[in-house]
Amino acid sequence: MLSVFLQCFAITIVVSLLWFALGYSIAFGDGNAVWGGLGKIFLAGIGPDTLRGTIPENLFFLFQMTFAIITPALIVGAFVERVRFSFVIAFSALWMLLVFSPIAYWIWGGGFLGDGGIWGATGVRDFAGGIVVHVTVGVAALVVAVMIGRRVDQTQVPHNPGYVLIGAAMLWVGWFGFNGGSALAANGAAANAMAVTHIAAVAGAMSWCIWEGVRTGKVTLVGLVSGLVAGLATATPTASYIHPVAAMISGGIAGVVCQEAQLLIRMRLKIDDSLDVFAIHAVGGSLGIVLLAVFGAAPVLAQVGSLVIAILWTVIMTYAIAQLLRGLLPMRVNPEEEVQGLDIATHGERAYLLDT
Amino acid sequence: MLSVFLQCFAITIVVSLLWFALGYSIAFGDGNAVWGGLGKIFLAGIGPDTLRGTIPENLFFLFQMTFAIITPALIVGAFVERVRFSFVIAFSALWMLLVFSPIAYWIWGGGFLGDGGIWGATGVRDFAGGIVVHVTVGVAALVVAVMIGRRVDQTQVPHNPGYVLIGAAMLWVGWFGFNGGSALAANGAAANAMAVTHIAAVAGAMSWCIWEGVRTGKVTLVGLVSGLVAGLATATPTASYIHPVAAMISGGIAGVVCQEAQLLIRMRLKIDDSLDVFAIHAVGGSLGIVLLAVFGAAPVLAQVGSLVIAILWTVIMTYAIAQLLRGLLPMRVNPEEEVQGLDIATHGERAYLLDT
Amino acid sequence: MLSVFLQCFAITIVVSLLWFALGYSIAFGDGNAVWGGLGKIFLAGIGPDTLRGTIPENLFFLFQMTFAIITPALIVGAFVERVRFSFVIAFSALWMLLVFSPIAYWIWGGGFLGDGGIWGATGVRDFAGGIVVHVTVGVAALVVAVMIGRRVDQTQVPHNPGYVLIGAAMLWVGWFGFNGGSALAANGAAANAMAVTHIAAVAGAMSWCIWEGVRTGKVTLVGLVSGLVAGLATATPTASYIHPVAAMISGGIAGVVCQEAQLLIRMRLKIDDSLDVFAIHAVGGSLGIVLLAVFGAAPVLAQVGSLVIAILWTVIMTYAIAQLLRGLLPMRVNPEEEVQGLDIATHGERAYLLDT
Repeated sequence: MLSVFLQCFAITIVVSLLWFALGYSIAFGDGNAVWGGLGKIFLAGIGPDTLRGTIPENLFFLFQMTFAIITPALIVGAFVERVRFSFVIAFSALWMLLVFSPIAYWIWGGGFLGDGGIWGATGVRDFAGGIVVHVTVGVAALVVAVMIGRRVDQTQVPHNPGYVLIGAAMLWVGWFGFNGGSALAANGAAANAMAVTHIAAVAGAMSWCIWEGVRTGKVTLVGLVSGLVAGLATATPTASYIHPVAAMISGGIAGVVCQEAQLLIRMRLKIDDSLDVFAIHAVGGSLGIVLLAVFGAAPVLAQVGSLVIAILWTVIMTYAIAQLLRGLLPMRVNPEEEVQGLDIATHGERAYLLDT
Repeated sequence: MLSVFLQCFAITIVVSLLWFALGYSIAFGDGNAVWGGLGKIFLAGIGPDTLRGTIPENLFFLFQMTFAIITPALIVGAFVERVRFSFVIAFSALWMLLVFSPIAYWIWGGGFLGDGGIWGATGVRDFAGGIVVHVTVGVAALVVAVMIGRRVDQTQVPHNPGYVLIGAAMLWVGWFGFNGGSALAANGAAANAMAVTHIAAVAGAMSWCIWEGVRTGKVTLVGLVSGLVAGLATATPTASYIHPVAAMISGGIAGVVCQEAQLLIRMRLKIDDSLDVFAIHAVGGSLGIVLLAVFGAAPVLAQVGSLVIAILWTVIMTYAIAQLLRGLLPMRVNPEEEVQGLDIATHGERAYLLDT
Repeated sequence: MLSVFLQCFAITIVVSLLWFALGYSIAFGDGNAVWGGLGKIFLAGIGPDTLRGTIPENLFFLFQMTFAIITPALIVGAFVERVRFSFVIAFSALWMLLVFSPIAYWIWGGGFLGDGGIWGATGVRDFAGGIVVHVTVGVAALVVAVMIGRRVDQTQVPHNPGYVLIGAAMLWVGWFGFNGGSALAANGAAANAMAVTHIAAVAGAMSWCIWEGVRTGKVTLVGLVSGLVAGLATATPTASYIHPVAAMISGGIAGVVCQEAQLLIRMRLKIDDSLDVFAIHAVGGSLGIVLLAVFGAAPVLAQVGSLVIAILWTVIMTYAIAQLLRGLLPMRVNPEEEVQGLDIATHGERAYLLDT
C-alpha cells in the first residue's frame, strides 16, 4: 500500500516541476502544428493579469497540470507491486513530456488534430480527455504490462476493500473537477458536463453489476467500482456535447464492453494489467470518442483518425521510453522482494503498526 | 464496515438513476398542488442553456440529487448490521420516490405547503431540509427500527473510533454544501447560512458534552459527534433566516433536547435505532422548524402544520413500503449471520487483511 | 492517534465559539492601532448584506476562523502524546485570544504593522500568514516543547505511515484554500497565489529529499512530507506577490534551511518538538517573510521588524499562558500513561478493534 502511495506522491512532485519547466509550454504554448515550443517554459511572461480565454493563465496552467499528474499515476495501476521505484519515476517523467504533452497539444492546444487541422474546420472532439488522458494511459499501461510480465503471485486480493471504495469515492468527486472544469467557466456547459459525468458513472456501475451477475451469478465490490470508472472514462470526451440520456446509454454500454475487454486481457491474453487500466480507461475512453460520432456530435473521420494516431504514437513512444530506461536501470524488483511486498522490501515500512 | 460502505454506494447508484428517471420530475416538475408530474422525466427538454432561477437546471438537478441520495442513506443508520442488502436497496428506491420526492415538492417545488399554498401567501420556511430531509429521515428510521427489532448483540462498540471522527469531519464539510448551496447563489444569504451552520454545530457539540458531563461525569467521542450533528440538523431549516447568535442558542438547545430524546428512545422505549437517527435528525430538524416560528421568522401554523403533515405521510408510507417489501423478500439476516457480521456473512470480505 | 484527532476536534469547537464571541472582533474589528475592540463580538450588527471589501462579512469571518482554528491545532504537533487534554484545550483557547488575534490585527486588521502604521505608508507584506500563522505557531511550539520536556520514549515511529501521506495530501489541498482564498476574490491574484503555493511545495519536497539523500544516503517518507510543508510555509507570505520561478527558488531554499533547522533543534538542542513545528513552520514562514524583501516585493525594515515584534510577543505571551495554566492544572500526563499511549490512558479507546 505504501509503495503505491509513495509512487503517486513522488509522481506528483516530479511531474509538477517538469510541467512547470517544460510540459506546459509543449502542450499549450504558441507553437506550430505539432508542438507548443519553448515560449512558455517556467511560465515565462505570465503574471497575475495574464488571461487564457476568460480565466487567469496561472489557473489554466494548474488545471491542466492535474491532468499531467494523473495520467502517469494511472499507468502505475498496470504494474503495481513489481516495478522498481526509480523506474516508475523516470518513466513517468519522460512519458509526461513525450506522450501526454504532445498529444494534449495536438488535440487541445492548437495542434493538427483540432479545429482547422488535418480534419478541416471541425477537428476532433475530446472534451475532458477521452484520448488525451484515458486512451493514452490505457495503451501505455498495456505496453508496460506486457513488457514487464505477470506478478509472481497471482492470488493476491485487495488488502483493504474499504480503501477501494474510499478511493473510488474520491476519484468520482475529483472527476467532476476534471469534466466540469474542462468547460473553463462556471456555466451551463459545465453543469451539463457534470450531469453527463454522474449519469454515465452510475449507469456504468449498474450495467457492469448486471452483466457480472448474469455471467457469474454474483456481484463484487471491485466490479461495482470498475463499472463506475468505465462509465466515467466514457463520459469524459462527451461530457459537454451530449444529453444525460445519451450519457446513460454510453455508460450502460461501457459497463458491458469494458468488462468483456477486461476478460479478454486477463483470461485470454493472460496479461497482468493489475488494475485493468487498459480495459477500463482505454476502452472506455475510445468508446466515448466513437460514440460522439455515432450521436452525430462530431465527424467520424476526425474521431477515429485521431484515436488511431494517438494510439500509434503512444505505443511507439511508451515502448521506446521503457526500453531506453530498461537499458539504464533495473525495471523489476527481484522475486523475493515482490513476494515480501514493496512496502517492506523497498521502503522498509509497514502500513500498519499494531500491538496485537 | 464494508456492508455499510457498500449499502451507501449502491444507494447512490440506484437513487441517482431513479432520480434522473422519475424523482426529479416528481419533486421539481411543473405540476399541480401535490406532485410535479412527469414532464421532466429523464431531464426531458433540459439542455445546457436551461436555467432554474439564475443557475443552470442541470446544476439544480444535481444539487437536489445529493439530498435525494443522502436521505435514504441516513435511514440506514437505524438498522445497520441486521438488514438484508436487497431490502435496503429496494426500500431506499421506493422511499425516495414515495416519501422524499413528494414532500420535497410540497415544500420546495411549488406544492401546497409552500408560499401560496394552504397556509396562505407565506408558506412553510425550511431552508435546507429540516422537514424535507431530517424529519422524514428520522421518522422513517424509527418506523423501520421498530418493525425490524433490536440487534441480537447490544454490546457492540464502534469498531474504529477514528473513522467516527473522520466521518463526522466529512459530514460537517459536506453540510456547508447542503446549507450554503441551498441559497442557490454565491451571495450573502449563502454566507449567512454557512455561519449559522458552523456556529450551531459547535454549540451543539459543546452543549451535548456539557450535558453528558453533568449527567454521567464523563464526555465521550460519540457524544461529541452526536451533539455536532444535532446542531447541524437544527441549523438546516433556519440557516439563511437567522443570525449566528440565534444559531448558537438553537444549537445549544439541540445538544440537550436531542440527548434526552436519545435516552428516551434507547433506554425507556428500548428501540434499537442504532445510530440515533430519530433522536438526532428528526428531533433536531423539528426543533429548527419550530424555532423559526419562535424567532419570528416564519408563521407558527405553517411550520407546525407542515411538520405534522410530513410526519404523518412519512409514517404511513414508510410502514406501507416496509410491509410490502417484507411480503416479497426477507427483511432481516438470520442471527448467525448477524453475530458473524455482515461484512463476512453477506459480502464474503474482511475490512482488513493483516499478516499478524 | 485518537488523542490527536480528539484534540483537534475539541480545538475546532472551542476556538470557533471563542472566535465568534471575541476573537474576530479583536482581530478584525474597527479598533485602534493595537486591537480591534469589542464592536464585533458575536458578529454584532453583521447581517447577510454586510460586506467586507467585496465579499459578505460572514464569509470573511468564516475564512479567517479557519486560520484561528488551525494555528493552535498546529502547535499540538510539538507536544503530542504527553500533554493533558484539559491543558491542550485551555492553552489553545487563551493562545488564540492573546497571541493569534492581536497579531492578526496588527498585520491584517488595520493595526500598527500594516500600511500606514509604524513602517510608514507601506507596511509588512504577509499574504496568507507567514508571520500571523506559521511564525507564531512555530515559536509557540518551541516554547511549550521546552517547558514540557521530552517524551519518555524517543524511539516511537509513526504508527501508520499511510496516514502521514493522507494527512499531508489533505493539508496540501487545504493550503490552496488558505493561500488562494487570501486574495478574497476569484481573480488573477488568487490564481497566482495557487501557482506559487504549488510550485514552492513541490520544490521544497524535492530539495529536502535531495539534501537528505546527500546527507544520509537515503530518502524517507517523513522527509518528503516535511519538505513539502516547508515549501508551503515559505510560500504562504509570498503567494500573490511573486512569480512561480521565485516560488521554486524559495521552496528549494526552504527544503535545505528547514532541514538544517530540524537537525539543530533535534540533535544539537535536544528539544522534542515532536512534529518539527518550529523548524518547518517558523523557519519556513520567516524565510518567506525575508525573501519578500530580498525579491524587492516589500520593505526590508517592515518585514524584519514585524517578524521580530511578532516573535517577541509570541514568546512572552506563550510562556505566560503556559505558566498560568501550569499553576492551575497538571500540564503533563504521568509516565505510565505516556508509555501506554493517550488513546487508552486518557480516552479509554483503541484506534482499531480487530478480531485477530
